Amino acid sequence: MEARANGEGSTPLYLRVRDQLANQIEAGLLAANTRLPSERVLAESHGTTRVTTRLALAQLEAEGRIYRSNRRGWFVSPPRLVYNPTQDYSFSDNVTSQGRTPATETLEVTATEVAPWLANKTGLAVGDAIVRLRRRRQVDGRPVLVENIYLNPKRLPGIEQYDFNRSLWKLLREKYSVELQGKRIEMFPTALVDPQAEALGVNAGTAGLYVTRRSHDADGVFVEFDEEFWLHDTLSIQVEVQ
Amino acid sequence: MEARANGEGSTPLYLRVRDQLANQIEAGLLAANTRLPSERVLAESHGTTRVTTRLALAQLEAEGRIYRSNRRGWFVSPPRLVYNPTQDYSFSDNVTSQGRTPATETLEVTATEVAPWLANKTGLAVGDAIVRLRRRRQVDGRPVLVENIYLNPKRLPGIEQYDFNRSLWKLLREKYSVELQGKRIEMFPTALVDPQAEALGVNAGTAGLYVTRRSHDADGVFVEFDEEFWLHDTLSIQVEVQ
Repeated sequence: MEARANGEGSTPLYLRVRDQLANQIEAGLLAANTRLPSERVLAESHGTTRVTTRLALAQLEAEGRIYRSNRRGWFVSPPRLVYNPTQDYSFSDNVTSQGRTPATETLEVTATEVAPWLANKTGLAVGDAIVRLRRRRQVDGRPVLVENIYLNPKRLPGIEQYDFNRSLWKLLREKYSVELQGKRIEMFPTALVDPQAEALGVNAGTAGLYVTRRSHDADGVFVEFDEEFWLHDTLSIQVEVQ
Repeated sequence: MEARANGEGSTPLYLRVRDQLANQIEAGLLAANTRLPSERVLAESHGTTRVTTRLALAQLEAEGRIYRSNRRGWFVSPPRLVYNPTQDYSFSDNVTSQGRTPATETLEVTATEVAPWLANKTGLAVGDAIVRLRRRRQVDGRPVLVENIYLNPKRLPGIEQYDFNRSLWKLLREKYSVELQGKRIEMFPTALVDPQAEALGVNAGTAGLYVTRRSHDADGVFVEFDEEFWLHDTLSIQVEVQ
């Protein structure tokens, strides 16, 4: 977004401080992952109070321009990862193609049963067997999302035995000859609560983006339902319409 | 989203209250735009304190399940408007096709100059003439977004004279023979500040979704840049990938 408040006209003081900091970030004077000066130093250098400075920092955080790191202060957010939901690439390929480094960590693999809400989403019956894979994904060492992937063990027998710290889509293709099709993606803003917030190292209530994706195989058999919880400041969705 | 907390395992008390309320909403016991009982009554009926009740309500608000109306209490959110950015329909057609009632209100039309950030977005030169149209749009009487539309007066001479409380796309087609092309859409979560928050009747800092769209005509001439500020709980983005 442009380096100005999305307000105009008579501007409250905290938004003027916000504009000055946003302009420094925009101009590259404060690079990505740079630590900001302390609130006291910022207040002095902008000739204002710490209360006003804190309001400006909270606003910049809400816009995704800065982030807080536990007890170490405020840092400039790196660029948002660009994600085009109409293109069919994996997380790892997408991150790598933007010159950044992906990492995937498996948190848990559980054999469980389909709950009512999941029956709605997948077309399976309540009580059917389902494998739940929970992963955390990073960009340049910063956690950006946790995801719960629900896999159909009827279509993917023995799926729970594999290593999930790699691309799931490649695994499905190589071991099960599954080409995922008919992807249906849904996204909306939400608030992160535990255990998502905890896994991402942020406070419960932090803004996030909730993304779900349901896919089937070439015969229309349900394969996976993925729900992703993204940190609000890590992602930009971009679509070209011809 | 499903009617359960996006948490599992040992659940804090406020999330259990949240789950009970979410289940009542899901089951249709609390219909859209229904007013919730007072915090005192809710606390009593869930056998808990008002502090815990307030945490549960704040969580439901952050998830977009309930909304606050100035001094009148808490209400159940209506369903999110579905928006498919890959399909080429107008706001009004999209809202109407979902059985709901759109309204558009022009707040301001200003002849101004292209600022540096807008030059970046449009390809125009800094200082070029531009017409800025500011509108508020409603669904079923509730404001859901405010937008700033920047129109190229070289391609659209006299544009500022028209009525903008109707479809802009139809106007461009009928009066200027413009078929918008090459739409490039970008979306990410943000926080709403004034004057956006004020125009939508919410507190500054409320979560939102920032959506921009740039379009040109059949000859590649820049026509419009639209920035939309949506209330976080009013929209669900849905895309099918074949």
